Amino acid sequence: MAKVAVLGYGTVGSGVVEVLDTNAAEVAKSAGEAVEVKYILDLRDFPGDKHENQVVHDFDIILNDPEVDVICETMGGLEPAFTFEKKALESGKSVCTSNKELVAAHGPELVEIAKKNGVSYLFEASVGGGIPVLRSINDSLKHEKIDAITGILNGTTNYILTKMDKEGIGFATVLKQAQDKGYAERNPEADIEGYDACRKIAILSSLMSGEHVNYEDIYTEGITKISIEDFAYAKSLNVAIKLLGMCKKNESGFFTIVAPFMIPMENPLANVNGVFNAIDVHGNMLGDVMFYGKGAGKSATASAVVADVVDILKHKGKHIEVNMNSKKAVLTSKDNAVRKFFVRVTENLEDQAKELFGNKIEIIKSEEVKGEFAFVTDLISEKDFEEKLWKLDSVKGYIRLY
Amino acid sequence: MAKVAVLGYGTVGSGVVEVLDTNAAEVAKSAGEAVEVKYILDLRDFPGDKHENQVVHDFDIILNDPEVDVICETMGGLEPAFTFEKKALESGKSVCTSNKELVAAHGPELVEIAKKNGVSYLFEASVGGGIPVLRSINDSLKHEKIDAITGILNGTTNYILTKMDKEGIGFATVLKQAQDKGYAERNPEADIEGYDACRKIAILSSLMSGEHVNYEDIYTEGITKISIEDFAYAKSLNVAIKLLGMCKKNESGFFTIVAPFMIPMENPLANVNGVFNAIDVHGNMLGDVMFYGKGAGKSATASAVVADVVDILKHKGKHIEVNMNSKKAVLTSKDNAVRKFFVRVTENLEDQAKELFGNKIEIIKSEEVKGEFAFVTDLISEKDFEEKLWKLDSVKGYIRLY
Repeated sequence: MAKVAVLGYGTVGSGVVEVLDTNAAEVAKSAGEAVEVKYILDLRDFPGDKHENQVVHDFDIILNDPEVDVICETMGGLEPAFTFEKKALESGKSVCTSNKELVAAHGPELVEIAKKNGVSYLFEASVGGGIPVLRSINDSLKHEKIDAITGILNGTTNYILTKMDKEGIGFATVLKQAQDKGYAERNPEADIEGYDACRKIAILSSLMSGEHVNYEDIYTEGITKISIEDFAYAKSLNVAIKLLGMCKKNESGFFTIVAPFMIPMENPLANVNGVFNAIDVHGNMLGDVMFYGKGAGKSATASAVVADVVDILKHKGKHIEVNMNSKKAVLTSKDNAVRKFFVRVTENLEDQAKELFGNKIEIIKSEEVKGEFAFVTDLISEKDFEEKLWKLDSVKGYIRLY
Repeated sequence: MAKVAVLGYGTVGSGVVEVLDTNAAEVAKSAGEAVEVKYILDLRDFPGDKHENQVVHDFDIILNDPEVDVICETMGGLEPAFTFEKKALESGKSVCTSNKELVAAHGPELVEIAKKNGVSYLFEASVGGGIPVLRSINDSLKHEKIDAITGILNGTTNYILTKMDKEGIGFATVLKQAQDKGYAERNPEADIEGYDACRKIAILSSLMSGEHVNYEDIYTEGITKISIEDFAYAKSLNVAIKLLGMCKKNESGFFTIVAPFMIPMENPLANVNGVFNAIDVHGNMLGDVMFYGKGAGKSATASAVVADVVDILKHKGKHIEVNMNSKKAVLTSKDNAVRKFFVRVTENLEDQAKELFGNKIEIIKSEEVKGEFAFVTDLISEKDFEEKLWKLDSVKGYIRLY
């Protein structure tokens, strides 16, 4: 009988306890032993809850109990989660977590501490909710040279963009509807400014590179500037508009970016709608493999935490290798990345656009959008694009092409 | 240094050798030791090939070499592959294979032999090419109660259906084009009659149930009866037509089927086009997770075989649990499965259709199809449907709804 402690009895934490209860037989079978929740750490009490007697308020009780094998940290935030996780690993307990903020900030360091102490640090639930993408990268695909990971990593923004697209409603209205339905937070900044997606691509690109990609180094653009006019053009271009987190390794360097992209409809990422997430992993021999599912939600996220618990128990007494160390990864400047751009400008600027971006630009007009036109540039570096864009008299918006 | 032998130096076998060569460093890192191809078994010689000196013609050389840890069987077919695999496992060598025919027919038995001998039997490459779906089911999702698996499991038929849909070309013509391009075999029966998909869903449903689902017990319908008229109706119904392999467990039983289905466009499976495969796995806590990628191709399939080699070497001296045993699974008769059906009939039969299937049927007419109409039934059991269908005077075709 293995004993686990759950830190934080909120949405994910209570989900973890629920999965362990509901699927007790399956968990025992896959872990090789039954799993019991011995402690739940929370500031609150939960009178009447099935597990009220497991609730404690002092982390040291958990830390000092030699019976506890695995700690599930589902509190979120940097502190005290970081201190708790570090202490747990140092005292020889394995840790698994859904805390993407902490993993993005200190994951590689925590992996090293785990390794030094012969225990494991896993964080499947920090990216893509229940989608088993981190374990696949770290396990089934580890013999591949992974050269690109591209993901729709935030369900809230994907829900908003899908609504804008399908129903032709503007950003602010959709955001308000999403907030009313509980799909978006009252303070939606982390989602709509791309910060949440940024942390997730930081974790994925750290795993890809084996080093620490600092999320603060990743160029991040949110979806607040996307308008229904953009979707009108998208229709005539036969593309979807999605907020992507990308990392890519090629001769020119190691790039990461979070930004809205126009994606051709043939690409499966273009058809990922609503609150769903999808992550495409490209390996040198394998080609593309895409993982798709609900990127959030209590049960799905909790299920991923429990997958880590099982993995840890299956490898008891062993450190599970995670391809990350705390060496700072060197990212190539976004300036050098080369791609096409979609640009919207006022209608009298066609000549200026051609003068700046060359005659090869593709002009796009939409029946639905008056008083302006759009064009798609030829391949151009981010730096050149930015310099030229500044010289255009009136820019209404731009979106990168995938 | 681990030594492996590859049985069969055809497309997949030579791919395995290529992956081991090209990604030698990554393979060594993930397996914990370097991996060398010591033998390649083939009837032919390969003069001039980089690995010509590894080629042998006698399986016993491999079997009797205690240095060989892992055997990759990439010959295909039932015999002599079955005899070779069995002998290998019995002599304490682990086996991995891409041979779906053999795994569907004898996988559970081979898993048991592996277990008895303390070695492993893995077959990731037998379903979905390079997509790491079997390992995910057997590993990351093992603590879930998996109650449904639905997949587009055959790239050739999906290519044909996609072409028919997008280009409005009839089945026979598209098949011929696919044969010319090498996407379909000269003898296409195994693909177009659904036999290949049937073997793959047999493997998936064995993994889901933990028993042996015999592929011969699975009701299987191919795509030869799908016409361009069906796609015309599909457009007005806003559905895609895909060949699905499905298994489902619910209060009424354990169902498996291979047949063309109409799938609502919102479902991500509807957007899986061309030679791609996708497998949706539904767990009780997790909800849906979909895995997507190329279901065939030399490098992708070989990469999955190498993933098994790595997994085996990481767990040297240990049997890797696979949720399968040779107890025969009991499938519920297809007759009891309840769903909606799309039916095409000649245009004077509207009253008869309503008389048989009730007034709740949805009549569909298509501008593009003359002299007939179609309707969608209410929910009805397969058995009832079949009985009523026989009473309709002139049926032009029917397709199940997903």
